[in-house]
Amino acid sequence: SPSPRPSILHLSGRAIRYLSKRRQERVGLIGDALRRDCFDLALLQEVWSEQDYSDLKVKLGGCYPFSHYFHSGVIGSGLCIFSRFPILDTLLYQYSLNGYPYMLQHGDWFCGKSVGLIVMKISGIVFNVYVTHLHAEYCRDKDVYLPHRLVQAWELAQFIRHTSQAADVVLLGGDLNMHPEDVGIRLLRGWTGLRDAFAEATRFEGCEDGCTLIPNNRFTVKTELLPFPLGIRIDYILYKAISGVTVKCEELKTTTGTAPGMDMPFSDHEAVMATLHIQRQGQAVGDTLGTAEPTLVDVVTEARTEVVVGLRAAQQQRYSMGRMAVLALLLLLLQAAAALGALAGLAAGQPFPKLSFSLLAFLAIGVLLLATSLHLFHTMEVKMLQGTEEQMRMALRALQERP
Amino acid sequence: SPSPRPSILHLSGRAIRYLSKRRQERVGLIGDALRRDCFDLALLQEVWSEQDYSDLKVKLGGCYPFSHYFHSGVIGSGLCIFSRFPILDTLLYQYSLNGYPYMLQHGDWFCGKSVGLIVMKISGIVFNVYVTHLHAEYCRDKDVYLPHRLVQAWELAQFIRHTSQAADVVLLGGDLNMHPEDVGIRLLRGWTGLRDAFAEATRFEGCEDGCTLIPNNRFTVKTELLPFPLGIRIDYILYKAISGVTVKCEELKTTTGTAPGMDMPFSDHEAVMATLHIQRQGQAVGDTLGTAEPTLVDVVTEARTEVVVGLRAAQQQRYSMGRMAVLALLLLLLQAAAALGALAGLAAGQPFPKLSFSLLAFLAIGVLLLATSLHLFHTMEVKMLQGTEEQMRMALRALQERP
Repeated sequence: SPSPRPSILHLSGRAIRYLSKRRQERVGLIGDALRRDCFDLALLQEVWSEQDYSDLKVKLGGCYPFSHYFHSGVIGSGLCIFSRFPILDTLLYQYSLNGYPYMLQHGDWFCGKSVGLIVMKISGIVFNVYVTHLHAEYCRDKDVYLPHRLVQAWELAQFIRHTSQAADVVLLGGDLNMHPEDVGIRLLRGWTGLRDAFAEATRFEGCEDGCTLIPNNRFTVKTELLPFPLGIRIDYILYKAISGVTVKCEELKTTTGTAPGMDMPFSDHEAVMATLHIQRQGQAVGDTLGTAEPTLVDVVTEARTEVVVGLRAAQQQRYSMGRMAVLALLLLLLQAAAALGALAGLAAGQPFPKLSFSLLAFLAIGVLLLATSLHLFHTMEVKMLQGTEEQMRMALRALQERP
Repeated sequence: SPSPRPSILHLSGRAIRYLSKRRQERVGLIGDALRRDCFDLALLQEVWSEQDYSDLKVKLGGCYPFSHYFHSGVIGSGLCIFSRFPILDTLLYQYSLNGYPYMLQHGDWFCGKSVGLIVMKISGIVFNVYVTHLHAEYCRDKDVYLPHRLVQAWELAQFIRHTSQAADVVLLGGDLNMHPEDVGIRLLRGWTGLRDAFAEATRFEGCEDGCTLIPNNRFTVKTELLPFPLGIRIDYILYKAISGVTVKCEELKTTTGTAPGMDMPFSDHEAVMATLHIQRQGQAVGDTLGTAEPTLVDVVTEARTEVVVGLRAAQQQRYSMGRMAVLALLLLLLQAAAALGALAGLAAGQPFPKLSFSLLAFLAIGVLLLATSLHLFHTMEVKMLQGTEEQMRMALRALQERP
């Protein structure tokens, strides 16, 4: 029986248009590297500019005749795939939560974080390939985005479980923004049965501990990495075999701070490259959970606790914003009453100077509009966190009822 | 072998909180009817109020011990399911396009249109049950929402295809807002292989032609139905068997303008009730397309043409809004120059009265902000329409390449 050996490359592109340093040069480098090595499959994230995608497509047409860019959000999903094999089908799933629109300095909200799926058939084996990018972590000690990232990890796991049932092999590549021991990774791996290519690889070559964000890379922010002198591992290639197929990771490599043969890196993240050995097997193996069930119960419980913490915070913010909107409305009504009183000649003189009176009214209207929008936004956030919490509760019940 | 006969009820709830006439009374009626008839499964749409859902849940606990409400958007998805059988798993998919936020009088944009999936196992047969509600049609002659509804129909079909591969039976109930011969319905049925319970039913009882929006219902808008004296059929129960199972629709019923035994209707839509006969079969049947392939090519081509029409319109609007933003910016700059000129004493007198000068500046700022937001919104719309058009092109290529 045929045993294809697709080598899978996963690059965290970080080609942020207008923002990144030396964007065009780096996109050019990525294109050169992909053309030189000719992988079977390249999964890229943060290719924000469709022009960059088109440039890459032209450059890589010879080696990767098939490609797909996932359109999403105002800026785009940033996700794209280049492949040596035909892409049979695609689907995009947008996560329901992705940070806050008013956190402009973080900007995640505007990027429409999603997971993209492509379906391919290589030597008769059906591959479901997922590429994604989860919400960034800006402060590990007090990570206000943890509940959102957990909702994303849960939705990612659910999306993979529900869409991969006709596949023989599942591959996931992406910047998950979680350390290997974080609850989100344990949840994703436990709930889907995906295995970590770094942990399973027969041979490994690259940064120590497989780190993909390292102080040695000139584009990383050094202060963020102070507690981690070796760097951190937040980019992953995960895989599993579903039916009648075995998958082994023969080799995993990362770049080490610079593009091969160059003095500058492609990206602020190191690229991860895996070579998988895939073989047909006689008997079919059923879909299994990744972790022994008692452990999985603990992981889901831990994740659910964090989601509930996020839910309480969101409810608190919804309440504060509602209260602020009501106060602004009261101030406006008071002003209207005062103005009417002045018009009716009740007040002896002009109680306020006209200009500050108008300015105060404008301020009150501004606060009212802003507080109302934020109240609505946090209402939506509460709903999505509640929905995830309910789904996790349902999953726990199902796990506990199993014989 | 066991042959369960689940009777499936599909109700278009239309229990719009604060807006609907006599909402509470109607939700009460729906609860009474569901409790009296005790279906196996009830799919409801437009239950906007979570309080209504909670009330129904309390009322129906005896007959339908299992239920799920799909949380989504600011207002909610409006979608919920009541079931006699345990719900094993759920997933929600939000459509990427759903009308325009500035069409306040239509309001679809705020409702977060989605498709909800629940997984159930009845007598060992796995059911994937989908419930959805697509964008309304406000003007059939000049339907500006057609491209958005087609994107939704395509995403619905893709979501069903990708998530139903481990199911034995697929059921879809919903207000699709499309007439039976519309391109969106043909696309959905052709691309998924779903069959129309009305067309397949052995026995039918209810409104002529299976209409679900009829002039006889006191909550329908009569002028909208003038071209259709019998009414229109826009609510559907669709189904298909996937592997080793046959499904037949034994009976289909609709209400006829009033709730059974009452003088008022549940809803502005008639309820649709189906009784399906499901039987295990020896041999497994592969996943098939719903329509012969040459016809399906025509349907996808027709849908793609409409999506391209929408794409052109969206590009035009993006351009107009961009131009308007630039003009407003120019006006502001001109004003700033005039003001500076006046300050520097270049102008002999005061060229404009101060008040109208300030008002003009405020107006320009307002137009600039609004036009910029709309430009961004239409940019997103263009991206999503492009993405769908690309997916359809890929599907056509795949269809044409088949032997």
